[in-house]
Amino acid sequence: MQTFNLSDYLLQYLDKTSATPRNRQLYRLLRQAILDRVLPADTRLPSSRDLASELLISRNTVLYAYEQLLAEGYVEARTGSGTFVANTVPDAIYLPVESAVRKKSGASKAQLSQRGHRLVAQAAAAPRQWGAFVPGVPDVTQFPHRVWNSLQSKIWRKPAISVLTYGQGGGHQGLREAVAEYLKVSRSVACEADQVVITNGIHQSIDLCLRLLSDPGDVAWVEDPCYWGARNLLAASGVRLRPVRVDAEGICPDAADLAEVPRFIFVTPSHQYPLGMVMSLARRRSLLEYARQHGCWIIEDDYDSEFRYGGRPLASLQGMDSAERVLYMGTFSKTMFPGLRLGYLVLPAILSQSFVTGMEELHRSGQASLQATMAEFMTQGHFNSHIRRMRLLYGARLEILQQEITRHFELSQVCAVGSDAGLHLTLRLPAQCDDRQIAREALAQGIAVRPLSSYYQDASHTESGLVLGYACVEEARIAPAFALLAAVIRLHL
Amino acid sequence: MQTFNLSDYLLQYLDKTSATPRNRQLYRLLRQAILDRVLPADTRLPSSRDLASELLISRNTVLYAYEQLLAEGYVEARTGSGTFVANTVPDAIYLPVESAVRKKSGASKAQLSQRGHRLVAQAAAAPRQWGAFVPGVPDVTQFPHRVWNSLQSKIWRKPAISVLTYGQGGGHQGLREAVAEYLKVSRSVACEADQVVITNGIHQSIDLCLRLLSDPGDVAWVEDPCYWGARNLLAASGVRLRPVRVDAEGICPDAADLAEVPRFIFVTPSHQYPLGMVMSLARRRSLLEYARQHGCWIIEDDYDSEFRYGGRPLASLQGMDSAERVLYMGTFSKTMFPGLRLGYLVLPAILSQSFVTGMEELHRSGQASLQATMAEFMTQGHFNSHIRRMRLLYGARLEILQQEITRHFELSQVCAVGSDAGLHLTLRLPAQCDDRQIAREALAQGIAVRPLSSYYQDASHTESGLVLGYACVEEARIAPAFALLAAVIRLHL
Repeated sequence: MQTFNLSDYLLQYLDKTSATPRNRQLYRLLRQAILDRVLPADTRLPSSRDLASELLISRNTVLYAYEQLLAEGYVEARTGSGTFVANTVPDAIYLPVESAVRKKSGASKAQLSQRGHRLVAQAAAAPRQWGAFVPGVPDVTQFPHRVWNSLQSKIWRKPAISVLTYGQGGGHQGLREAVAEYLKVSRSVACEADQVVITNGIHQSIDLCLRLLSDPGDVAWVEDPCYWGARNLLAASGVRLRPVRVDAEGICPDAADLAEVPRFIFVTPSHQYPLGMVMSLARRRSLLEYARQHGCWIIEDDYDSEFRYGGRPLASLQGMDSAERVLYMGTFSKTMFPGLRLGYLVLPAILSQSFVTGMEELHRSGQASLQATMAEFMTQGHFNSHIRRMRLLYGARLEILQQEITRHFELSQVCAVGSDAGLHLTLRLPAQCDDRQIAREALAQGIAVRPLSSYYQDASHTESGLVLGYACVEEARIAPAFALLAAVIRLHL
Repeated sequence: MQTFNLSDYLLQYLDKTSATPRNRQLYRLLRQAILDRVLPADTRLPSSRDLASELLISRNTVLYAYEQLLAEGYVEARTGSGTFVANTVPDAIYLPVESAVRKKSGASKAQLSQRGHRLVAQAAAAPRQWGAFVPGVPDVTQFPHRVWNSLQSKIWRKPAISVLTYGQGGGHQGLREAVAEYLKVSRSVACEADQVVITNGIHQSIDLCLRLLSDPGDVAWVEDPCYWGARNLLAASGVRLRPVRVDAEGICPDAADLAEVPRFIFVTPSHQYPLGMVMSLARRRSLLEYARQHGCWIIEDDYDSEFRYGGRPLASLQGMDSAERVLYMGTFSKTMFPGLRLGYLVLPAILSQSFVTGMEELHRSGQASLQATMAEFMTQGHFNSHIRRMRLLYGARLEILQQEITRHFELSQVCAVGSDAGLHLTLRLPAQCDDRQIAREALAQGIAVRPLSSYYQDASHTESGLVLGYACVEEARIAPAFALLAAVIRLHL
């Protein structure tokens, strides 16, 4: 009776036209029948010969399925008497469940944890990563991919074992050296190669700092406005954000801010994000002194200051720090291309070994071929010449955009700030403009901009504006794209 | 007077033989003098013409340095009267510091946070990642690097914008599809491509699960013994570890374990790490039922079961789960090469969007060229054929190692377990042997092994043994290397 039903069931579901081999199909059908207890424990399966003839398939097909079920414990062979469904009902010990426990866990079923929820709920990465006027994206079509390809191919022609196996946490030594050298010369960063840790970008660098130097409940100052990514990572780590106002000289803590000493001070001294001012020397020295006296860590995010259009790049805050309180971070996302996923963290010497170890524990290291390619790209001079070429290109695009802004608006209505450096500028709008609504309406016209108010934490000093990236917009596209945006803005003035 | 001293100071430190341009040197020396208050605020600097002639350098050199100092705010130009050191003493507001605060922060200066300390203190990645008998490392010299190089070069010949810019958190779509297809066929994993999230390996996959699904204080069952990496990541996240004994059928919770429902159950059902047993069907079903009833998450780490030497690979636990409680993770570190840093996480459909977002927030995504290369490698069949070839190779090496073990030892003294699959086997030693001491002595002979006891958490059931990787040891090297190890072991029997 059991045998008869089984072959009916199998004949019904075996699909002779399927791409899945018949032996796999048979195995899955039998397995499902056992799991669903259609075939209860101790049921005797038909012999492979009988089942094969009933199903009109080869005996080997049946044998394959039986062997797999046997190997996985669904059936067992009893000597001399055939193949039986194994007795695999859950052990009695697992069954008793206190109802209180069940209710509690039932309620949280399928939910994220509190910190998981914080991370996901505040997510702010843009769905669009290209075109007018996405901020922070370089023109990747200009990247010298032939040079890159040839450097990469050369490494892969005869890859060393060290390129293919696990690495050590700080990254490829050649790249650490090239980054240290580059930062010394171009950013006045004071460091040796062993203070450099290669990461996959600013987010990972920030996360690493938080994992190693903070505990839940610690306080961090963030500039207000600031980069959304830093804010979200801090919140996801359980660190309490204290938004600190910025003025024309950069971060500007008041007496209330100073009352509770923070663990971290997150700043963008070379090019405040997104407003673009440079932190003044007085402010820099005050901040360093405060951090030294109180044992705070200053996180200097130097994300795009390679592209400075008026004069030479400014020196880093890190280079002025004699008390080893500054952690400096940068990225190749703007200078090379975002998909590279490479960044760097420069640590006070006293912390560098802990960071190397922490990186190794959290992510294991490797990708030496990628990092070795990057090192070659730098030491052969391609990196510096690419930056120089892009600085000219972005400078030209910035000029076009500024002309368009002047053409469409009076300075008293709409003014551009933060355009000395970087890949974006910020249009300040009159206070009554709803910048989020403007951004939505612009997006409907195919123009992506970020509302300035979305970068603020503290509603009491939020300003209205739009952050416009111009680096990934072709020259000819800037005027027509801005005309569309201007039309939207005008409706709100 | 000031002027005279300044030029002496500068003449003393300007190095005309240095590779650093003289204008940079001059800028740095002046900056340092200002920071050190050798040149106090409001000091008038000599004119560029005067200073140039005193230092016997060109006036342009001096002008460059002055301009840089001006741009950075160290000096200021007062119309008609020259260049003066700026007044940059710290703002008064920063200065008053309560002594209690100062003392507290002084004590924690330069220290890691509690969670940072946990992460670093338990670090266990081996310093050596190659040779006899490093566990878990495949033979990377056998990797078909020419095929890889040509696939990679093809993508780089004309890279799409989407390959170079930011990606979306789940990874390259083609790779997500290829992984889903591969896991369906070879590991009986039930999934669609949008349930797959590409990570940079098992560590990052585990970390992502912890960030999204746990809060500090949650309980996780780990197998005892288990992989050191999982244990450390859990501890670093503030999750409380509950080590659970394993028996011949895999993880084996007792009544005390069951009394407190865990948030996570970490298991290696296909090949227990490091002992190598397969979780029985009865145990699998019990575990799934328990997780379903209590709303626990089961993390299935399927790290090396592609290499199964006796019979076909066993189906995954995930494929048996009808209640969406299993998160399945795997890695390309063993099947491809560790330096690739690519792994995958298969999520219950209800969680996948949150994980895509979480991945994007924590790490931003990209590396599409790498992931696209991997997708091509899989869809063109190179992946499967490389696995088949390596399975034969590792099987042959395993056989040699097993012969050597039998040649050197009686089964009653030293026996090998867990050799049905993977890249390592475990030698069980008599209980009185100090396996850590043996590992140290072996390392002095150039042989790297991991002591089994180091994988245990709970001292009450720790066993003595050695975990030996054979995959990255050439055939001819196995016998002589094992002879060295055997000599060390024999001293302890």
